[in-house]
Amino acid sequence: MTWQATVLTLFPDMFPGHLGQSLAGRALDNGLWSCRTEDMRLHGLGRHRAVDDTPFGGGAGMVIRPDVVDAALAASQAGADVPRIYLTPRGRPLSQRDVRRYAASPGVLLLCGRFEGVDERVLEARGLEQVSIGDYVLSGGETAALVLLDACVRLLPGVMGSEDSGVEESFSEGLLEYPHYTRPAEWDGRAVPDILLSGNHAAIAAWRQAQAEEITRERRPDLWSAWLDRREKTGL
Amino acid sequence: MTWQATVLTLFPDMFPGHLGQSLAGRALDNGLWSCRTEDMRLHGLGRHRAVDDTPFGGGAGMVIRPDVVDAALAASQAGADVPRIYLTPRGRPLSQRDVRRYAASPGVLLLCGRFEGVDERVLEARGLEQVSIGDYVLSGGETAALVLLDACVRLLPGVMGSEDSGVEESFSEGLLEYPHYTRPAEWDGRAVPDILLSGNHAAIAAWRQAQAEEITRERRPDLWSAWLDRREKTGL
Repeated sequence: MTWQATVLTLFPDMFPGHLGQSLAGRALDNGLWSCRTEDMRLHGLGRHRAVDDTPFGGGAGMVIRPDVVDAALAASQAGADVPRIYLTPRGRPLSQRDVRRYAASPGVLLLCGRFEGVDERVLEARGLEQVSIGDYVLSGGETAALVLLDACVRLLPGVMGSEDSGVEESFSEGLLEYPHYTRPAEWDGRAVPDILLSGNHAAIAAWRQAQAEEITRERRPDLWSAWLDRREKTGL
Repeated sequence: MTWQATVLTLFPDMFPGHLGQSLAGRALDNGLWSCRTEDMRLHGLGRHRAVDDTPFGGGAGMVIRPDVVDAALAASQAGADVPRIYLTPRGRPLSQRDVRRYAASPGVLLLCGRFEGVDERVLEARGLEQVSIGDYVLSGGETAALVLLDACVRLLPGVMGSEDSGVEESFSEGLLEYPHYTRPAEWDGRAVPDILLSGNHAAIAAWRQAQAEEITRERRPDLWSAWLDRREKTGL
């Protein structure tokens, strides 16, 4: 079955973008997913197809009208059974858990904002989840939509080769991954850690776990304390 | 002066991708930024131009060789004065503060990993910052590089129109933004909040602040407690 992405955007030519190549591109060619766009401009009002207007209450920027978004939603004919997602820095953070849920759905509907954003009423009335890919500002929701699609598509059955399959599991454990080393064993005066050449699998596993814990503690105090909490609760 | 992005990748055709359009695309056409790629495959070894090998210590997947990355780095001729960034879920989280720093530099050098990642030694030896765009797994660093470029390019002098300029400030305050409303004042049986039609600017500002606080508390307990801490320290 084809996993169906539907994207509401003012820039339909941005899709599938770079996802037309490599892993996601082959999957698209093979019909494992599809990417339809609905151009919100076609649902704009008047001779100029206006999609936005000034915010009530004043302030800089323009806001996309609820009636325009709603008309585009209706025209997109996305199934009632697909998650509807509005990409915005105001959303809850996208997690790998969300990605797995979306990938397990028949597809997703993605609403890409521009300018100051979208009128809040249409988000509430039409049940759009508000999701953020990170704490930075993009020129529009399109870049965030491509991130979400990339993350979902690689999880679809038949897409990922075995060379990628390890990443997921190690990330899911709640720690950042240990460092990787490959040939040559000595490069630019730097040798790989001796333990990795020892052939002692238990010692290697213990070293990797210790590295993962150290890196997580240093770089991600938030993940580290969540992991400590979990370890305490499960008594491991 | 042209802000110069240099991207080390196995998929050079993915750039500038969708950033060749709209805001970033016009800026590219106008010479406000440039996007050069260095194809790591050209620096691969042997007849098959191998760029990766199995990990020392065992495990799934392949790791990109340090000598291949280093040869591509040397060939890219990126200036010594640009931040060097390796995009990886193992990195510290990208923030808008980082984005401002990168945008204020002469450019950036971005290393895009694939498979299990890149040999740790070349990251250390060549001073690559490890940066993550979020807690989810992508098919490769290219999608993350496009995110970082989008975020930086919109901040370059001359790129952003006035219609976008408000977003930045409100995000920078440490709270999620209040909801937006525009015409029509009544849509699908839903009216915009009365206060926004009152013309009372002080009351509108207070309502928006209260909304921003409530949304942040609900959706982002992490930002909310950081904001409370800051407010306590500054005594406001």
